[in-house]
Amino acid sequence: MSWSGARNKELMERARAVLPNGMYGHESVMMMPEDFPQFFQKAQGTRLWDVDGNEYIDYMCAYGPNLMGYGRPEVQSAIGAQLAMGDTMTGPGAGIVELAETFVSMVKHADWALFCKNGGDATSIAMVTARAYKGRKKILVARGAYHGSAPWNTPSMSGIVPDDRAHIIYFDYNDVDSVTKAAKFAGDDVAAIFATPFKHDTFTDQADVNAEYARGVRALCDEIDALLIIDDVRAGFRLARGCSWDTVGVEPDIACFGKVIGNGQPISAVLGSDKARKAIESIFVTGSFWFSAVPMAAALATLKLVRDTDYLEQMVKIGTMFRTGLDAQAADFGFALRQTGPVQMPLVMFHDDPDFRFGYEWCRQAMLHGVYLSPYHNMFMNAAMTEADVALTLEATGKAFDYLKANRSTIEPQAKLGVLKRLMAS
Amino acid sequence: MSWSGARNKELMERARAVLPNGMYGHESVMMMPEDFPQFFQKAQGTRLWDVDGNEYIDYMCAYGPNLMGYGRPEVQSAIGAQLAMGDTMTGPGAGIVELAETFVSMVKHADWALFCKNGGDATSIAMVTARAYKGRKKILVARGAYHGSAPWNTPSMSGIVPDDRAHIIYFDYNDVDSVTKAAKFAGDDVAAIFATPFKHDTFTDQADVNAEYARGVRALCDEIDALLIIDDVRAGFRLARGCSWDTVGVEPDIACFGKVIGNGQPISAVLGSDKARKAIESIFVTGSFWFSAVPMAAALATLKLVRDTDYLEQMVKIGTMFRTGLDAQAADFGFALRQTGPVQMPLVMFHDDPDFRFGYEWCRQAMLHGVYLSPYHNMFMNAAMTEADVALTLEATGKAFDYLKANRSTIEPQAKLGVLKRLMAS
Repeated sequence: MSWSGARNKELMERARAVLPNGMYGHESVMMMPEDFPQFFQKAQGTRLWDVDGNEYIDYMCAYGPNLMGYGRPEVQSAIGAQLAMGDTMTGPGAGIVELAETFVSMVKHADWALFCKNGGDATSIAMVTARAYKGRKKILVARGAYHGSAPWNTPSMSGIVPDDRAHIIYFDYNDVDSVTKAAKFAGDDVAAIFATPFKHDTFTDQADVNAEYARGVRALCDEIDALLIIDDVRAGFRLARGCSWDTVGVEPDIACFGKVIGNGQPISAVLGSDKARKAIESIFVTGSFWFSAVPMAAALATLKLVRDTDYLEQMVKIGTMFRTGLDAQAADFGFALRQTGPVQMPLVMFHDDPDFRFGYEWCRQAMLHGVYLSPYHNMFMNAAMTEADVALTLEATGKAFDYLKANRSTIEPQAKLGVLKRLMAS
Repeated sequence: MSWSGARNKELMERARAVLPNGMYGHESVMMMPEDFPQFFQKAQGTRLWDVDGNEYIDYMCAYGPNLMGYGRPEVQSAIGAQLAMGDTMTGPGAGIVELAETFVSMVKHADWALFCKNGGDATSIAMVTARAYKGRKKILVARGAYHGSAPWNTPSMSGIVPDDRAHIIYFDYNDVDSVTKAAKFAGDDVAAIFATPFKHDTFTDQADVNAEYARGVRALCDEIDALLIIDDVRAGFRLARGCSWDTVGVEPDIACFGKVIGNGQPISAVLGSDKARKAIESIFVTGSFWFSAVPMAAALATLKLVRDTDYLEQMVKIGTMFRTGLDAQAADFGFALRQTGPVQMPLVMFHDDPDFRFGYEWCRQAMLHGVYLSPYHNMFMNAAMTEADVALTLEATGKAFDYLKANRSTIEPQAKLGVLKRLMAS
């Protein structure tokens, strides 16, 4: 079986005419290595098939949502059963109550839940809720952190007006002094501090959260009566069976979940404590499909798996095998890697690779041999992954390292990285 | 068979503990007449069943999404087939290209399409795109129009800061002078004018669009090189097989669609002309589930029905029967109605009913007899409705009129209308 990209290429041509940039958003392959497929026809368990029929072990997991394996039977049967009854109706099903009760029982700080669609719905609602809490305006956000693509946070400034960010104040992640300084700068007008569970910005090493920093941010929020908001959209349920800062013993006032909670079905959530109840009850937010019953049924099935299976331990085991396997392999071929972040959400970069030429070519070679990795965005483990998957993965990455070694002196940085450089400079 | 609300009541009690206000958003029954069910177990064709098993002919259609009948077989089989292959994957399926091509072929002004989830995603993206178009800031919006619940437009001001609306300028719908004045006020900084297809604000009569007004807004946009944005989220495909202003021969630069396009599956769309292409390609927007394949398969099936069936003529026929039937019935019982807006999206109010006491009680009685109507929000026809459904509906509304007539002098305004009065005064 040999890799082919003909159908994908044809679709990309057609897409250029009718989709912005031929494809838009975080799943665009614009910044991925050459030849990465844009369109897929099938996903099952740990596997993904592109429109040309090439099969991959997928380490992107739909950029997060695939937590339990694509098409996980327990979730699929919940979807099928609810779909036969009703999905988007003139009100929610009983499932919305059961789902909120389940979240409240599983997530320590949570006394209530509000369900929405996008991760960005959840973070924007958390922001508005925090402003409603005491009538304050300032929102403290870690520099470079992604909290969605609404005007107050999208990475691109085109179409954004200064007023969209008039009250956003930036600080440095894992730096208590920096966040304290930002709070002082805001005077008595701090509504909330946003925290990501760990530093997972793109194109740069990840950083685990420092426990002292997490406790410091919590203490600061208590001192100034601002809300602590954890944006767990990307990391949720991959680090803990509750909020990700359970790992450092710190509870937020509001947490934002998304991506994984329906194992791919469209649903996100704002989970808050009683402290924030009056505030959330004072705002008006809604969406056409927020009350659809199918995603809630999928979320109930997913939460049951989170609660009752060893999915988390499995991801840690497989993630550890993946990381140690790659390190050993890199050393064998004369390379050194920087592998950062939790093993469940790995980022793999090459030492001494400032223009990403090795990282990009390595991912490209692995892709051509059936393993879908990213050279610049954290990847995601899922609970369906097995030791056999890691063995197959290492076979492919072995070939990729071999290619790098053989072509070390002639590999050029990919042209699209010039685009990135210009984007980052602007 | 007698109506019962026991299970619904029990769920509402439980919900009060774990959901904001026991339920939030536009599907909350907070403002609906007493005893309206909040939770539903099933929807099929024109029918809806609440958690107590009461069956209703549903004139809310999930507040719009149900265009072709709940669980329409052509759409359901597209959903089932795609679900078996893959839904939320590491990239879209080929369907995203086919769907964009289909929209471009069906909607006159459209040269490209961008898909998202909420109607509010589409309107916010249109706003940001318009600002990117010429680097201008001001957005003209009709007073009282709903364009989603993002901070720049939500009807509640709690948690909203003045900066969120610093560049929103309001004008009066159907009033060319008013919109011209607003544009003058904005000087040379107008990015876009938002238009709803017709006036469909809640708690007030609807108003059809004046063709002269529509042409005037188009001419004004051309004159000042601002983008004309039609928010067709609520009315889309119920007035025309393309943009709703096809009915008056006016094309926008951008149209926002949502609700109906997947017949209940979560998908919305921004449809733009070449004029706006560079602008949309310069902004960054995305969402975790925007590229999921199932809603796109559902949308393709729905668009095929829009193109190839007489769904629209059927809705007009049934909507006309509903309207004329109610008028005749009202006269028989000594009442007069104000029925406004297109018959496919009817709003029914009582003459001389300033505190809505008759409207609320009439809807309550109809609900108890198996017909789900709204006293304050426009309703929606769907293509599955038949003459037999209208006959059954008129049986129920006949009983409701009879009740009103018998109790005319003793009906009190419902307590929750006091809440509304306070909300509107604040």
